[in-house]
Amino acid sequence: MFTPVLSLLLMLYRKFPAGAPLSTDLMQANNRVYIATSLDGFISDRNGGLAWLDSVENPEGDDMGYGNFMANTDALLMGRTTFETVCGFDVEWPYTKPVYVLSNSLTKVPAEYEGKVWLVKGKLPEVLQYIHERGHLSLYIDGGQTITNFLAQGLIDEMILTVFPVLLGGGHPLFGDLPVAQDFELVNSKVCLGKLVQSHYRRKTGRP
Amino acid sequence: MFTPVLSLLLMLYRKFPAGAPLSTDLMQANNRVYIATSLDGFISDRNGGLAWLDSVENPEGDDMGYGNFMANTDALLMGRTTFETVCGFDVEWPYTKPVYVLSNSLTKVPAEYEGKVWLVKGKLPEVLQYIHERGHLSLYIDGGQTITNFLAQGLIDEMILTVFPVLLGGGHPLFGDLPVAQDFELVNSKVCLGKLVQSHYRRKTGRP
Repeated sequence: MFTPVLSLLLMLYRKFPAGAPLSTDLMQANNRVYIATSLDGFISDRNGGLAWLDSVENPEGDDMGYGNFMANTDALLMGRTTFETVCGFDVEWPYTKPVYVLSNSLTKVPAEYEGKVWLVKGKLPEVLQYIHERGHLSLYIDGGQTITNFLAQGLIDEMILTVFPVLLGGGHPLFGDLPVAQDFELVNSKVCLGKLVQSHYRRKTGRP
Repeated sequence: MFTPVLSLLLMLYRKFPAGAPLSTDLMQANNRVYIATSLDGFISDRNGGLAWLDSVENPEGDDMGYGNFMANTDALLMGRTTFETVCGFDVEWPYTKPVYVLSNSLTKVPAEYEGKVWLVKGKLPEVLQYIHERGHLSLYIDGGQTITNFLAQGLIDEMILTVFPVLLGGGHPLFGDLPVAQDFELVNSKVCLGKLVQSHYRRKTGRP
């Protein structure tokens, strides 16, 4: 009989194809967030809507650093809800990097996403260990509940937050309760499209 | 028998000394917020503490625009809790402008604050009308609950928010539920002391 951790890993190894070469340079491992919020800290409105993201015109298609962020991303890790939301968009699959989907309920990746999406479950440190062992160290953590869970466990290293100038007044908040305060340092901040404030934060570690 | 509004105004006129000359140029009236928040939108920690505001060194005493903001302020309007908090600071009274304190429970300004502080109560539009009639049009709205109440009624015109790079994880939030979304425009945003992001927003009005 396997321990839960071992059975998780065995299950994952069965579920995953051969991945990138193993890397032991876990110093490079980091979990990064790139997300837009309203001025009052919501990532979607009361109905889950994102129409407010379209409220700012972007005639020249400024990617607001997204391309550079993705170029430095090995893989994405998102919650099931976000995965299903992205699947529901009337666009082609938007990611060129592997996508890990945290889910306790999904048992199988839909056929059209095979080779692009892999299911993971379990405690976050174990999930991360598994993903790192697949050679994916720099992870784009996405989805409100997933980010909240990562933050609650002190597992977010960097955040690029793009603040839209609207008070939604309700919706899904990016930040939740934390057991202790977490200090970050400002890497930089800039105005995008004349209307958005994009700030890059890095978690302080090993400091009092 | 007086109507509630009239009795409020009579009460206020009795409570207040002769003020600045009346001004009817209410186009200049605006309600402005200048406040620091944590990255997760709190203005004080779970214990009401503000120690995190001291976490950023300020060796050259950069006032971060406060002097200019106050120079363009006719009077302050704050809640009782904030008033009592300021009274409790071990410093001289910090304001050179008149301070209006919203309170349903205080009946008298403590003797040492006479001539500096005036009590007001009632519905916000009526309180504002009274203050405007005293010649004070550009108001610094302060205090968490007061700002929340003003925002909920669409009465905040400008906000200068200075975001500290810390997730407090709990405390008193700046923003509360709103019945409808409110659009603002970004006036400018800058980095202060290399660590803080200060953004100036102005409410959009008369727009769809």
